[in-house]
Amino acid sequence: MTANFAARHIGPRADETKAMLAALGVPSLETLITQAVPKKIRLDRALDLPPAVGEAEALAALGAIMSENRVLKSFIGAGYHGVKVPPVIQRNMFENPAWYTAYTPYQSEISQGRLEMLFHFQTLVTELTGLPVASASLLDEGTAVAEAVGIAWRHHRSSRNRVVLAGQLHPQTRDVVETRAEPLGMEIIEGEADDNTCALIVPWADTLGVYHDHSAAIAKAREAGAIVIFVADPLGLLLSKTPAELGADIAVGSMQRFGVPMGFGGPHAAYCAVADKLTRLMPGRLVGQSKDAHGRPGYRLALQTREQHIRRDKATSNICTAQALLANMAAAYAIWHGPEGLKSIAARVNAFASRLLEGAKQAGIEIAGDVVFDTVTLTIKGKAKELAEKAEADGRLIRVIDADRVAICFDEASTEEDLTALASLLGVKAPAEAKAAAPAAPRGDSFLTQPDFHAHRSETEMMRYLRKLADKDLALDRAMIPLGSCTMKLNAAAEMAPVSWNEVANLHPFAPEAHTPGYRRMIDDLDKWLSEITGFDACSLQPNAGSQGEYAGLLAIRHYHQALGQGERDVCLIPTSAHGTNPASASMVGMRVVAVRCDDDGNIDFDDLKAKAEQHAERLAALMITYPSTHGVFEEGVRDMCAVVHENGGQVYLDGANLNAMVGLSRPGDLGADVCHMNLHKTFCIPHGGGGPGVGPIGVKAHLKPYVPGHVALGTSDAVSAAPFGSASILPITWMYIRMMGGDGLKLATEMAILNANYIAHRLKEHYPVLYKGRNDRVAHECILDTRVWKDRAGVSVEDIAKRLIDYGFHAPTMSWPVAGTLMVEPTESEPKAELDRFCDAMISIAKEAARIESGDLPKDDNPLVNAPHSADILVADEWTHPYSRKEAAFPSGSMEAASKYWPPVSRVDNVAGDRNLVCACPPVEAMAS
Amino acid sequence: MTANFAARHIGPRADETKAMLAALGVPSLETLITQAVPKKIRLDRALDLPPAVGEAEALAALGAIMSENRVLKSFIGAGYHGVKVPPVIQRNMFENPAWYTAYTPYQSEISQGRLEMLFHFQTLVTELTGLPVASASLLDEGTAVAEAVGIAWRHHRSSRNRVVLAGQLHPQTRDVVETRAEPLGMEIIEGEADDNTCALIVPWADTLGVYHDHSAAIAKAREAGAIVIFVADPLGLLLSKTPAELGADIAVGSMQRFGVPMGFGGPHAAYCAVADKLTRLMPGRLVGQSKDAHGRPGYRLALQTREQHIRRDKATSNICTAQALLANMAAAYAIWHGPEGLKSIAARVNAFASRLLEGAKQAGIEIAGDVVFDTVTLTIKGKAKELAEKAEADGRLIRVIDADRVAICFDEASTEEDLTALASLLGVKAPAEAKAAAPAAPRGDSFLTQPDFHAHRSETEMMRYLRKLADKDLALDRAMIPLGSCTMKLNAAAEMAPVSWNEVANLHPFAPEAHTPGYRRMIDDLDKWLSEITGFDACSLQPNAGSQGEYAGLLAIRHYHQALGQGERDVCLIPTSAHGTNPASASMVGMRVVAVRCDDDGNIDFDDLKAKAEQHAERLAALMITYPSTHGVFEEGVRDMCAVVHENGGQVYLDGANLNAMVGLSRPGDLGADVCHMNLHKTFCIPHGGGGPGVGPIGVKAHLKPYVPGHVALGTSDAVSAAPFGSASILPITWMYIRMMGGDGLKLATEMAILNANYIAHRLKEHYPVLYKGRNDRVAHECILDTRVWKDRAGVSVEDIAKRLIDYGFHAPTMSWPVAGTLMVEPTESEPKAELDRFCDAMISIAKEAARIESGDLPKDDNPLVNAPHSADILVADEWTHPYSRKEAAFPSGSMEAASKYWPPVSRVDNVAGDRNLVCACPPVEAMAS
Repeated sequence: MTANFAARHIGPRADETKAMLAALGVPSLETLITQAVPKKIRLDRALDLPPAVGEAEALAALGAIMSENRVLKSFIGAGYHGVKVPPVIQRNMFENPAWYTAYTPYQSEISQGRLEMLFHFQTLVTELTGLPVASASLLDEGTAVAEAVGIAWRHHRSSRNRVVLAGQLHPQTRDVVETRAEPLGMEIIEGEADDNTCALIVPWADTLGVYHDHSAAIAKAREAGAIVIFVADPLGLLLSKTPAELGADIAVGSMQRFGVPMGFGGPHAAYCAVADKLTRLMPGRLVGQSKDAHGRPGYRLALQTREQHIRRDKATSNICTAQALLANMAAAYAIWHGPEGLKSIAARVNAFASRLLEGAKQAGIEIAGDVVFDTVTLTIKGKAKELAEKAEADGRLIRVIDADRVAICFDEASTEEDLTALASLLGVKAPAEAKAAAPAAPRGDSFLTQPDFHAHRSETEMMRYLRKLADKDLALDRAMIPLGSCTMKLNAAAEMAPVSWNEVANLHPFAPEAHTPGYRRMIDDLDKWLSEITGFDACSLQPNAGSQGEYAGLLAIRHYHQALGQGERDVCLIPTSAHGTNPASASMVGMRVVAVRCDDDGNIDFDDLKAKAEQHAERLAALMITYPSTHGVFEEGVRDMCAVVHENGGQVYLDGANLNAMVGLSRPGDLGADVCHMNLHKTFCIPHGGGGPGVGPIGVKAHLKPYVPGHVALGTSDAVSAAPFGSASILPITWMYIRMMGGDGLKLATEMAILNANYIAHRLKEHYPVLYKGRNDRVAHECILDTRVWKDRAGVSVEDIAKRLIDYGFHAPTMSWPVAGTLMVEPTESEPKAELDRFCDAMISIAKEAARIESGDLPKDDNPLVNAPHSADILVADEWTHPYSRKEAAFPSGSMEAASKYWPPVSRVDNVAGDRNLVCACPPVEAMAS
Repeated sequence: MTANFAARHIGPRADETKAMLAALGVPSLETLITQAVPKKIRLDRALDLPPAVGEAEALAALGAIMSENRVLKSFIGAGYHGVKVPPVIQRNMFENPAWYTAYTPYQSEISQGRLEMLFHFQTLVTELTGLPVASASLLDEGTAVAEAVGIAWRHHRSSRNRVVLAGQLHPQTRDVVETRAEPLGMEIIEGEADDNTCALIVPWADTLGVYHDHSAAIAKAREAGAIVIFVADPLGLLLSKTPAELGADIAVGSMQRFGVPMGFGGPHAAYCAVADKLTRLMPGRLVGQSKDAHGRPGYRLALQTREQHIRRDKATSNICTAQALLANMAAAYAIWHGPEGLKSIAARVNAFASRLLEGAKQAGIEIAGDVVFDTVTLTIKGKAKELAEKAEADGRLIRVIDADRVAICFDEASTEEDLTALASLLGVKAPAEAKAAAPAAPRGDSFLTQPDFHAHRSETEMMRYLRKLADKDLALDRAMIPLGSCTMKLNAAAEMAPVSWNEVANLHPFAPEAHTPGYRRMIDDLDKWLSEITGFDACSLQPNAGSQGEYAGLLAIRHYHQALGQGERDVCLIPTSAHGTNPASASMVGMRVVAVRCDDDGNIDFDDLKAKAEQHAERLAALMITYPSTHGVFEEGVRDMCAVVHENGGQVYLDGANLNAMVGLSRPGDLGADVCHMNLHKTFCIPHGGGGPGVGPIGVKAHLKPYVPGHVALGTSDAVSAAPFGSASILPITWMYIRMMGGDGLKLATEMAILNANYIAHRLKEHYPVLYKGRNDRVAHECILDTRVWKDRAGVSVEDIAKRLIDYGFHAPTMSWPVAGTLMVEPTESEPKAELDRFCDAMISIAKEAARIESGDLPKDDNPLVNAPHSADILVADEWTHPYSRKEAAFPSGSMEAASKYWPPVSRVDNVAGDRNLVCACPPVEAMAS
């Protein structure tokens, strides 16, 4: 028991399991699984994984692996910089489950804390860029540039297919953009904007660190009607005019150096800010300010056409998740330092660069340019490599551009000693002072004047502010989050600990291979283990979100067909029940979506599939299926479906969103899929972070292996993420999980997830019809509760039920997806029976409340459901006019433990009002005064 | 700014400082300090300390130092064992400010979370020992044995002066006990109990790991009326009869191996359990269950004659603090593993020992005894050292008893590989199985049946339970804790981080010197730095609490007089205003207390002091003074007082409880003190941990240096703590603080602490008279608010005000000390002006509520003060009969931020009822059933 992590990860104890099985009327877990999971898809052997070990042993084993990494001080730059993570943020946010176990803030009322911090992130970005609208983060700098190009492309209604570069982007950025552009028939060129140019990309600075004068090119582009995109280092912007002032319509970049460790490439938040006219074309999430039912301000996600709500026909991008935790860290970093602190950090970095530049000039060394922020690129004929080796011997990494040139990039962690040592390596003496080489003087006093960027400057205040925001939110550290299809399982402390290790956090993604054997070994392990779990021949861990995995998988299929000389294959069959990202991803790789019918039970209509596959045989590229289906059903005919697609020349892409129902029981690869993405943030314990990070690796069959994403740092191309291994620093979470569970533990987890879901379905079926049961009347790992009965009988909406659950201390299940008017519940294996029962009791109690409305005992327009959630100030107000008591409102389950009650900070938030009057950043104090 | 930690540690920003100075009518901070602190005691130069560095730099510097330590796997045992700290406890309790920044739970209503966990600790101890009453922890095993002897001594009303050892204690334990016994005229012998024996000490097991049959000695002792004390390893007790069954009246021991790292010696919790008849003689804290104003159960500290309430004439010990955080970790560890988990850990440890023992026996190696739990002591003639060196070369530390004997002790972290390697070193083959060598079979099913030891077994449940308890409490992460004399300042995350480092956490205190150079260098730094700060020639960091520092300081004075041949000096002058621990400590070192009068302003009557010093010149041992005084005043005549004591042959002991008013401004050593203790948990940022740990080092002048505590591990004696450097693993907190503040930062902190206190005094003086102002009408770093005016005018008690502050979201200040009916407020430098104002506004608002009672607007028996605090269930109850509104009750300050409101889990707790019917441990389920 003590060394058995699986027993810690899984919620129910043996006696609870027994009681649940008894309630279901089955003699054993194996019987239930046999009922729920068709025999013909079952894996008939145990997973071939290392045997499970305990927490301490796994930590020791991973520690030994990662200690093989060499952490040198990095002066490589190129989009990744050394930072000083403020310890108060590290401890109270990054290492605090109240922050990292939270879900995406779709339910506004229980998300006001992280929405407030994301709102600060947006405010910060608008202040840095001068553009009026900023989103709540994108995945990384490379994909953010690609998304910006996408905005421009959509702005021009796909009528312009040329992107002009005003200067040299970082190689990895260019690669990501080119990879994205190719399927859409776009070309990326250097030159001048013309009438066919949809966007001009201005690197600010270029990859050599130089800030060129692009005013002529920008003027030309604006004249031609092209969208001007700045790719700008946010710290450099403190010593620069804003992109808006310089003519930008869009600005994007990485916020990594705002207090987020390099982590061998990620995760970090990218920012994206746009001019007003582009607001509705922005991908990703946008936090807006609205009002609650009592007129008080409340934050919420604005303009929601995303995620489960992504509209297949109106999708503007396949982006779902954001990098919420990292965006929050960046915002907290800016709050902690405030405008004067940020300016002083920027000025210090620039002083190092300016002094090295001045010294180099005095010594007659050729430099790439005069106007720089943090990077000096020097020409040392034929000696670049030698110099880098000398620096390395001294404990410092610099960037080799080519045989003749090196770049040295300073950051927050650089010291006087570093400057002296690097200068002396170059045979240069850096002067004690030098004229700032920056493009402009530091920002003036009107920068970041919003109160929250000034109010939390002592550690005591900052710690309390972070706690106050965390207390506004409901995360896994307080209650079950029964999100269907999102697998909110335990994120164990032992899994999380390595993310903070120096050897994990502080490596540059382009550090020499010889410095990162630990990382590579861990990634190899994951490649092997995940391949075994899914039944594929290889995995790529580069995609840093599920949507990116989908895209990478379809891209591999595209490139495979091209390699076979069948580039014309562009038809993608997608069942009507699919997640909205599926068609969005298909269109990103230039495929045409052909819908396949589903029957009333949500199952794919095999005859229709067969007919469509045959009809499009000449052009058939792929079938995208989700398995088990988005309705939570194991379709028995899956092998036949795969076969018919293969027979007609197509490839099968399997969406692994529901992999938590399969691990150890069935393998996508065995079912016939050629490629499949996994969500490590669902099935494999990476926390949701309040809305990201995520990791979406893909498994592929051998024939697709040559077409998985490459990376310039690996000497290949077709990257889908900025870093070669994507969000590498959170991969240890999954490594630890698999290592501690072993094959048996993973299988048991799946079985218990299925048991927990069936138990809930069983307890609630009399109160809410359970939709889409599979064979033997069993569901898989989630169940869909039909609340429309209560709409019909009592006028109670699914939203009323979701919001009333907050009063009971629960996060709502997935609302109205995949079927409008339903709640989809996925308890996961980590929830104990007591919590499942608490949830079922709450749902039953809500049904009784609805019944009282139906009977006329409570009026339709004034009852605990329609008024939910009830905030504390309303509960203790002098006046109470409702036909139910304050106590029923506040403590509906009868439990009176006030200290552990979750108190919603606002009443129901009005989404429509917020979208009508979009406020997505705090105006500066001056603006408020005027 | 960015690298300036002082600006992060100190609450007020420059503009706030300016505003506060303006309110006080002084032009500068220096002017205020000149007014508040007499020139004649001022230090006229800057502190000579290393210049301040930023958080990252300090962490890197300490990292470099501590990386010099070598962490080998320890098989040394002797009271310190390797552990596996459950990551869920590490992250959610040990590294969570909600747990570690809490104060001692004197205010029951805001302490229910940690009181519940401490109650579990007591329950666990009663279950392990079979004794009915257990306290909420003592400082370490050594002092716990000494305290147990003290209980026996007091039980016999000091009439018996012999302590008999039934077997060999660990050497450090024996040393601590002998050091304590000597001044009291007690002798410690081996032999048989007689009529002069106050206690028989039974080592369970002895220092060689053997469990002997002591039944005859115990029977003899009981016959002679002696108290039987068991010193028992708690993990070993899982495979033993209980001490109660074996005849013990008292059981003590260390709970370290219940999930608390060795930390080079501490801090850890010791346990103490007693028979009913000894309950009221127990030292330290006892958590009891009582009822709140509405009859609901509520925990609180029982039988409170301790701490500020310690009664000088009735003191049973000078123990104030406990090891709350560590006791809570131990309780959480037991909850996490449950009885079956604990039994399995114990059985596994015992199996290793049994197999090695069996192998050694088969090989003909002489062993110390047959019945063992974890330790095997082997005789290898003349080769003990060589064997230890071989083990060390293999990465393992074993214990050398003498030239011929080694002891090998297994623990939770031991592995099969360890056993094999150690056996092979001995040339022995451990059998695959061996009969358990334990004193008894594992406990049966009736052990630890209380529900909480069974209800939190998955990590999800445990995480939520720890959060639920934390949410019940009010700690520094949510609000100011204005505890007079307790200096609740910021415990910065950068200061706390090193405590979790492997090189800090996992060293055995008796590891070879060559393995611990990092620790020694850090301790040397602290010795130097604290000596410079206090004006002494050396510091001892061994005392692990303030009370232990007092005791160690007086002991040094005693030994100094003895060395001069003046052992008869035993008069200790103590002003009547002194803290209750002062006379208690004096009596522990065999001194007679002679009281010195104080005037109406709380100042020492110099003439009386002089008269008493001269009167007792022949026997004068010491003067104990607190500076600045317990009334918060800098007495100007302090140099003269020291002089007159010295002239009469005495030494001056200065109580450093109020050192936060002096650092950088004045030095105890310069004022004439010969010895002084510091509270690192007050002035130097070690968190209070919810009631411990603490560290109480002493600074001494050169002539006392030979008499500071020694330790057997250092080849010396007269220890006051079990470990040579006391609570070594938390010393990095203080190291980091001093290193990041530098001399200037420390001085500024003191000045700001004085400013904050004077600002509060200024804002509140019209509503509550401020007692004991010093020169120029200024207070030092704290102020005493006289609430008796409201008792007279409106019948409002100081307790009513303290409890009403909870509704406003504050922890109460120190109540009724040093003057009954007052509140002593120490804001510290870490609180920003906004929080000071929030506190002052609350106090003023309370005064207005009191005025409404005075005017008859509110009845005396039903008003928001007398009913405070208001718990949420009362606030939303159907019935509300009070003459003030629910809103006034819940949100009295008008602020309606419900999510960040602190919700007390209970109403006012009845202390008297709880003491009348003492419940201090949960009965087992069987007992409740019967």
